[in-house]
Amino acid sequence: MNLLQKSLFIKDLKPKETVRTSFLVKSKDLFHAKNGKPYLAILLSDSTGDLDGRVWENAEALSTTFSEGDIIAVGGKLHYFQNRNQLVIDHLVPLPQDETKVEDYLPKGTADLEILYQRLMGYFESLENPWVKELGLKLLNDPEIAARYKVCPAAKTIHHAFIGGLLTHSLQLCDLIEAILPLYPGVDRNLMIFGAAFHDFGKIFELSYQGKFGYTDEGRLVGHIAIGVVLIDRKIQELTQFPKELEYQLKHLILSHHGKLEHGSPKRPHTLEAELLHQLDHMDSRINSIQSFMGSENNASRWSGYHKTYDQYYFKPIEMISTEKA
Amino acid sequence: MNLLQKSLFIKDLKPKETVRTSFLVKSKDLFHAKNGKPYLAILLSDSTGDLDGRVWENAEALSTTFSEGDIIAVGGKLHYFQNRNQLVIDHLVPLPQDETKVEDYLPKGTADLEILYQRLMGYFESLENPWVKELGLKLLNDPEIAARYKVCPAAKTIHHAFIGGLLTHSLQLCDLIEAILPLYPGVDRNLMIFGAAFHDFGKIFELSYQGKFGYTDEGRLVGHIAIGVVLIDRKIQELTQFPKELEYQLKHLILSHHGKLEHGSPKRPHTLEAELLHQLDHMDSRINSIQSFMGSENNASRWSGYHKTYDQYYFKPIEMISTEKA
Amino acid sequence: MNLLQKSLFIKDLKPKETVRTSFLVKSKDLFHAKNGKPYLAILLSDSTGDLDGRVWENAEALSTTFSEGDIIAVGGKLHYFQNRNQLVIDHLVPLPQDETKVEDYLPKGTADLEILYQRLMGYFESLENPWVKELGLKLLNDPEIAARYKVCPAAKTIHHAFIGGLLTHSLQLCDLIEAILPLYPGVDRNLMIFGAAFHDFGKIFELSYQGKFGYTDEGRLVGHIAIGVVLIDRKIQELTQFPKELEYQLKHLILSHHGKLEHGSPKRPHTLEAELLHQLDHMDSRINSIQSFMGSENNASRWSGYHKTYDQYYFKPIEMISTEKA
Amino acid sequence: MNLLQKSLFIKDLKPKETVRTSFLVKSKDLFHAKNGKPYLAILLSDSTGDLDGRVWENAEALSTTFSEGDIIAVGGKLHYFQNRNQLVIDHLVPLPQDETKVEDYLPKGTADLEILYQRLMGYFESLENPWVKELGLKLLNDPEIAARYKVCPAAKTIHHAFIGGLLTHSLQLCDLIEAILPLYPGVDRNLMIFGAAFHDFGKIFELSYQGKFGYTDEGRLVGHIAIGVVLIDRKIQELTQFPKELEYQLKHLILSHHGKLEHGSPKRPHTLEAELLHQLDHMDSRINSIQSFMGSENNASRWSGYHKTYDQYYFKPIEMISTEKA
Amino acid sequence: MNLLQKSLFIKDLKPKETVRTSFLVKSKDLFHAKNGKPYLAILLSDSTGDLDGRVWENAEALSTTFSEGDIIAVGGKLHYFQNRNQLVIDHLVPLPQDETKVEDYLPKGTADLEILYQRLMGYFESLENPWVKELGLKLLNDPEIAARYKVCPAAKTIHHAFIGGLLTHSLQLCDLIEAILPLYPGVDRNLMIFGAAFHDFGKIFELSYQGKFGYTDEGRLVGHIAIGVVLIDRKIQELTQFPKELEYQLKHLILSHHGKLEHGSPKRPHTLEAELLHQLDHMDSRINSIQSFMGSENNASRWSGYHKTYDQYYFKPIEMISTEKA
Amino acid sequence: MNLLQKSLFIKDLKPKETVRTSFLVKSKDLFHAKNGKPYLAILLSDSTGDLDGRVWENAEALSTTFSEGDIIAVGGKLHYFQNRNQLVIDHLVPLPQDETKVEDYLPKGTADLEILYQRLMGYFESLENPWVKELGLKLLNDPEIAARYKVCPAAKTIHHAFIGGLLTHSLQLCDLIEAILPLYPGVDRNLMIFGAAFHDFGKIFELSYQGKFGYTDEGRLVGHIAIGVVLIDRKIQELTQFPKELEYQLKHLILSHHGKLEHGSPKRPHTLEAELLHQLDHMDSRINSIQSFMGSENNASRWSGYHKTYDQYYFKPIEMISTEKA
Repeated sequence: MNLLQKSLFIKDLKPKETVRTSFLVKSKDLFHAKNGKPYLAILLSDSTGDLDGRVWENAEALSTTFSEGDIIAVGGKLHYFQNRNQLVIDHLVPLPQDETKVEDYLPKGTADLEILYQRLMGYFESLENPWVKELGLKLLNDPEIAARYKVCPAAKTIHHAFIGGLLTHSLQLCDLIEAILPLYPGVDRNLMIFGAAFHDFGKIFELSYQGKFGYTDEGRLVGHIAIGVVLIDRKIQELTQFPKELEYQLKHLILSHHGKLEHGSPKRPHTLEAELLHQLDHMDSRINSIQSFMGSENNASRWSGYHKTYDQYYFKPIEMISTEKA
Repeated sequence: MNLLQKSLFIKDLKPKETVRTSFLVKSKDLFHAKNGKPYLAILLSDSTGDLDGRVWENAEALSTTFSEGDIIAVGGKLHYFQNRNQLVIDHLVPLPQDETKVEDYLPKGTADLEILYQRLMGYFESLENPWVKELGLKLLNDPEIAARYKVCPAAKTIHHAFIGGLLTHSLQLCDLIEAILPLYPGVDRNLMIFGAAFHDFGKIFELSYQGKFGYTDEGRLVGHIAIGVVLIDRKIQELTQFPKELEYQLKHLILSHHGKLEHGSPKRPHTLEAELLHQLDHMDSRINSIQSFMGSENNASRWSGYHKTYDQYYFKPIEMISTEKA
Repeated sequence: MNLLQKSLFIKDLKPKETVRTSFLVKSKDLFHAKNGKPYLAILLSDSTGDLDGRVWENAEALSTTFSEGDIIAVGGKLHYFQNRNQLVIDHLVPLPQDETKVEDYLPKGTADLEILYQRLMGYFESLENPWVKELGLKLLNDPEIAARYKVCPAAKTIHHAFIGGLLTHSLQLCDLIEAILPLYPGVDRNLMIFGAAFHDFGKIFELSYQGKFGYTDEGRLVGHIAIGVVLIDRKIQELTQFPKELEYQLKHLILSHHGKLEHGSPKRPHTLEAELLHQLDHMDSRINSIQSFMGSENNASRWSGYHKTYDQYYFKPIEMISTEKA
Repeated sequence: MNLLQKSLFIKDLKPKETVRTSFLVKSKDLFHAKNGKPYLAILLSDSTGDLDGRVWENAEALSTTFSEGDIIAVGGKLHYFQNRNQLVIDHLVPLPQDETKVEDYLPKGTADLEILYQRLMGYFESLENPWVKELGLKLLNDPEIAARYKVCPAAKTIHHAFIGGLLTHSLQLCDLIEAILPLYPGVDRNLMIFGAAFHDFGKIFELSYQGKFGYTDEGRLVGHIAIGVVLIDRKIQELTQFPKELEYQLKHLILSHHGKLEHGSPKRPHTLEAELLHQLDHMDSRINSIQSFMGSENNASRWSGYHKTYDQYYFKPIEMISTEKA
Repeated sequence: MNLLQKSLFIKDLKPKETVRTSFLVKSKDLFHAKNGKPYLAILLSDSTGDLDGRVWENAEALSTTFSEGDIIAVGGKLHYFQNRNQLVIDHLVPLPQDETKVEDYLPKGTADLEILYQRLMGYFESLENPWVKELGLKLLNDPEIAARYKVCPAAKTIHHAFIGGLLTHSLQLCDLIEAILPLYPGVDRNLMIFGAAFHDFGKIFELSYQGKFGYTDEGRLVGHIAIGVVLIDRKIQELTQFPKELEYQLKHLILSHHGKLEHGSPKRPHTLEAELLHQLDHMDSRINSIQSFMGSENNASRWSGYHKTYDQYYFKPIEMISTEKA
Repeated sequence: MNLLQKSLFIKDLKPKETVRTSFLVKSKDLFHAKNGKPYLAILLSDSTGDLDGRVWENAEALSTTFSEGDIIAVGGKLHYFQNRNQLVIDHLVPLPQDETKVEDYLPKGTADLEILYQRLMGYFESLENPWVKELGLKLLNDPEIAARYKVCPAAKTIHHAFIGGLLTHSLQLCDLIEAILPLYPGVDRNLMIFGAAFHDFGKIFELSYQGKFGYTDEGRLVGHIAIGVVLIDRKIQELTQFPKELEYQLKHLILSHHGKLEHGSPKRPHTLEAELLHQLDHMDSRINSIQSFMGSENNASRWSGYHKTYDQYYFKPIEMISTEKA
């Protein structure tokens, strides 16, 4: 097949350059200039970032040829003003999704996802409790779960919002547990690893991540916590005589990991492991979110912009400050 | 079998009477009088109410012969002071549970539970949507669910806290829906009846109600909302090609019926039916709780005592005022 | 008198059409285009909806000829972009309010308000308690109250925000009470009907609804709850020996119907009837608001836009989805 | 009439003394000692304080001879233990209320209430705005209002909880206003004085203070804010052509003086005067409450006990510390 | 030195006038008009107010010649539309800060700051407690503190946001204390005056006010409460044998003056003086803020615009209403 | 000196035993039995736990011979009822504190505090940043700080409430940081170690721990956060040219480590290190508190009693369940 091979990425674009490549359309709006002329404002993206696009000519007609979530081939010129790049698009053609490699257009981490998944399964191979080990491996070896788990982001926007983000975050939790367990004797490693691997995995059906990240109907109506508990329940039904008390504790880890009712957990943590899992999950999400946020800025100010979710400004380390004048 | 037949009930006891019957032990405490002598304070109950009991003689030895949740035969005399009855117990023998009829010792409503359950199934027989109808009847005809649903209370203490309370409350919701639907065209009757019948039915495994009402381990760790969704999911798995969107909406009704995250719903209502179900459930629980609370007092004051859950005092209707002087 | 008869309404306008009719001005803003030229952005309305208007020529001069709340005759052409209609106005003349029929320009329900008012009075005719009956009819027969009650909206924007909305909402409450009272024996019908009819009627002086909906000074400084209690008090003063306890209970229904102090009720519900009235009022306002909100959208998405007051997105029934492509 | 003249007061009692006088009964409880013998625990009070009483002999029979709120003549002996005085009562006779001077038994301030009331009227005499002046004097000269206003406490327990407390507090607000108005030019003195005098005066019907302090049914169902607004409204109705805008502002002062909805104000302050009145009222109530609280303790600790309403411990000035060892 | 002498101020500008003077740049944004042409939007200010500025020609090049916080000389013409003045700038030159008098460009009060500072010191001269007197004067006589205290605003925007605002506010608190202390016997004047003078003085290092008002890094990371306590601690270290208990009480006044933890006070008020200081500070800030806010509007409406911090609209006194039509 | 050597400890006592040893008095109350006889209720403690004591004879006289916080020698017999041990005391003599070893009477951890302190200093020896290293060692080598830091508990009751608890907790944080830093590249180790060692060290002056644990006046009025910042500031003043920005960041770690204003931090975390320190501190305190709480119970129930601070019941691991019947 004769694909438009994506070889030019957003992070490499330079102002004043002529650009000829393809992007995912994250949003599309038809506006009217004050002189009455319509124009298109498009938010473009690929695996390396986002880019504003403008179509000044023939906007109304072009607008009908593609939708949000489509991949489009474009040609145009890159301008820089108000501290941002903007692509003024001269021509534009939507591409069929089956002729493109969707990963090229979605944000992703740097790690090899296949290797990460093997590391996660390795944690389960090492468990002492045979029930948790069997259940965990059964879940991770389920082809549909495996296929989705390897690519699903950890969230739509707030933290680990990239292809493989859920896996990256879950594995980081496993590594944190391994690092601190020697300091907390009495905590059950089997429960902790299970909680780390599966606390959020209902997101594989809650989020949509084939095109731009979003929520599925199931995600909005049922939510990843209930989805996760149901997925685990189905696998437990297939195992004979899974211990009831262990089943309750495993489900409890999922149901309580947001820590508070008002954060969407129908249960607050009732076990030591549930409490510790919640604390580590909260810590890792927050640290990751703050680091990504500070890293996404490119200016000379020690103070970050406003972080909406945390209602906060951050004081950046001196190493993060761009040497170019803001 | 030669049972101690229970024919005398708490609501019929009169001060100064000699009492000879059996009760459920709701709580038991060994205290020390200031003169150093130990005594037993017992909270007794049967299907008509609660009663304070005291054992002044031989308390330590008797204390070891029975536990909370047991049924005991007692003999003693009823005193009245500080505005309450108190049974001073002279002798006391625990009874084996299999020689007693447990319903005699638990609070219950007045209706015939078998008939109520038929009425509930009747609602499902009348539904237009074949999927909701089949799923609902399949659940209600499951022998374990049916056996439990017919006796489970709606809550441990706060509202409809009696044998069959869950069924009574769910059926009241169905009746309310039937009454008001003509005033709300556009609301889906199939979803409403399903929600009314199953929003709380996870309580059949969350609560324990064989002896005194309490929570199971599954109830405390998993909770009735997740239990209910899992029970529904298992039945849906048995049906071929149950429509996905309908499945999400049915689960959503369960997941959102507390209305707010901080009240333990992992989802807030996203559909008109979920919102209306939440409102009716909230209204009916509250009205039932207030009426029971006001009805449980027996004095001449227009103002009720303090309702802890609602942090409120109530002004009682004149009809509810006892004519005896407080 | 030679009126500009309104025969063309917003809901019937079609893109590309030339339009010649009159509208109420809900808001008016003079903006400057980037080329330095001023233009007018006007929000127009009539009894069937709202419409954006633009004046591109001679804006500054025309701007001084009318104010928000005025009715203006306009001529222009209807355009469609960014998913909305927009009227580009060529000429514009303000009309004297006494030469127009103000109801043509305000949102309204479909029912005959005179008939609704008779139905409301019918409820009072049917009451058993002679004091409540007399007081209710005395209030409803007061000419100023009657004139205002028949047209007042139930709220500025959030629910039943149309001419006659207060009456529609209050009567719906009466109908709901009539439907559910058989399921709640022990609830006093006299108190419930009085509460339904008068809980919000202080709004007849709180809101202004001769032109666009808004608040009066009295509304903002005193508020409908205190206004309502004072109106009732004045009528009770005219009746001889109105029972004190009944007076307190009736006032209490008004004072507590928002249910919580933080929602503006100076009293929380202390009687069963006050609690039930609050629950029904809350339920009906919310259901009406959600239905109106979902119905006001015209697109193919199952998910509604964002409902600001309830901080929520709604999943619409399939029947509500427009078949036209979004 | 041959009254038992009260000449001995609680503040003057000394341990080991034989006591023969009369008290108001604030509460009465019949308890059972562990040896089975009933005894009476009575909270006694007079205008100088509270005192615990115990009846060890013949308790059951004596208990039926009087009620809470009665005045009783007693004889007994004063003991001291657990850091408090306790009166062991040997004999006890209830007194008819019309043979006692109720003020002797209720907490009161030190000032002459008649003089305070004249000072309050003096403030109104000095006002410039004729409407506010006339309305204020009309209210203060109403015989029923005057009779009640001169004795009503400002609250049941929390601040200025003594006979004349409402008047004392309102006058203190007038004095504060007079002191600070020179520092706040632009604030309307007429509105401020009216607000100071009448913000809480609905309490004259909200509280009962003939015997022990409590709430009336009207107080609990309607509340002092709505009562106050209605009282003002009735007087305004008697005046011809009272300016509407002024009426709204005066009512607004009453309706908003708690400052926040969740504190029971149906309106938050919308005028400068309403805001300032709320601040001064809040400050004076709090300072008075803390000073009374610290002053009511009699020990050598710099730290007060726990103040429940303010959830706080206070560090007392060295002058307030009792020199007697705790 | 040959300065561009500022003789023309914002409050004196008139529409259609040609303007030639200098301003402080509070913010600067480069926008693109829809026709693709860049323009500059500048917020200008001087000691009498703010003014919008626009540069339509050569915007990109001019934008690089100055920064926010600079003072610039401009020439242009004043237009009026959308109810505001706007300066269309024809030419623009940045001025060196050392050739300008920065006070001309910052908002300021009307009083002579030197005299106010003498009055503040006078309060300390009058104190009876020698330790508080010496500490207070030592702090006020510190040259760096004195220099900063005389000019520092009380806040960035919300109240007393002008040069000398902190001093004005602190002195107003001293005056309020002096006025009301006769009404609150038992309150310690020494503590009150110290608290009034130093509760907020950490702001002299928290805020930056040489150019436009803002926060220093120390302000954002350490905050005025901790800064203030440290400054006081350093001076106390220099005094021999300062009484420990007094030290704790003085620090406590600073640490608790916001009244609640959630308002940034690490301690809630534990002393009567701390409570009273908090109440007066809260009252004065709020009244000043509301008066400034109402006074900053210039229209014929009785209702103010929306006050974001207080989430409120205010009803203005008739005297504040501009006679010009809005 | 001839000390009463403590060789018998609470954890080793057995019911029915005659006991002869010494204890710290944590609380002392004189009560009256219903037969009129006074008795003493004493809470006794030593380094291994708490014990209820009763004095039935000669209570009033003995009560005057000692105070809370004293150490007393006692003789008596151990009884067991209501699931607890109780010591009935026959004779009792207060001991002079200088003849006792106070550590014997206070709860303590198991580690050698001198070694822990060396490990803490070792962390500072290993730091790269010379300023943080010097400041940290200067603080830890200060004799008064060192003496206090080695014994101070981390809290009065809630977590690490034992002699050396502060040191134990701080060192645990250092170990946690060392364990997880490899997983969080970009986090500054110097700041983290400083924060771990000094975030709570103001407690050495906030808490009193010579006798029973409590708060000092300085602790209640100033608090450990402000105390800590002042102690650091004093040491920084002694160092020449300590970098300002580093000073702000170090103080910020102390000021923000509770994470939220409402938890008593005057600053929320503005740096990555402050956020991470807060998260780890929160996690470690909570896990320690839950483990201590579950470990302090001695019964056969899987469910713990109610944890007041966390408003929660915990499900205990099977290993923690006592095999003795509850």
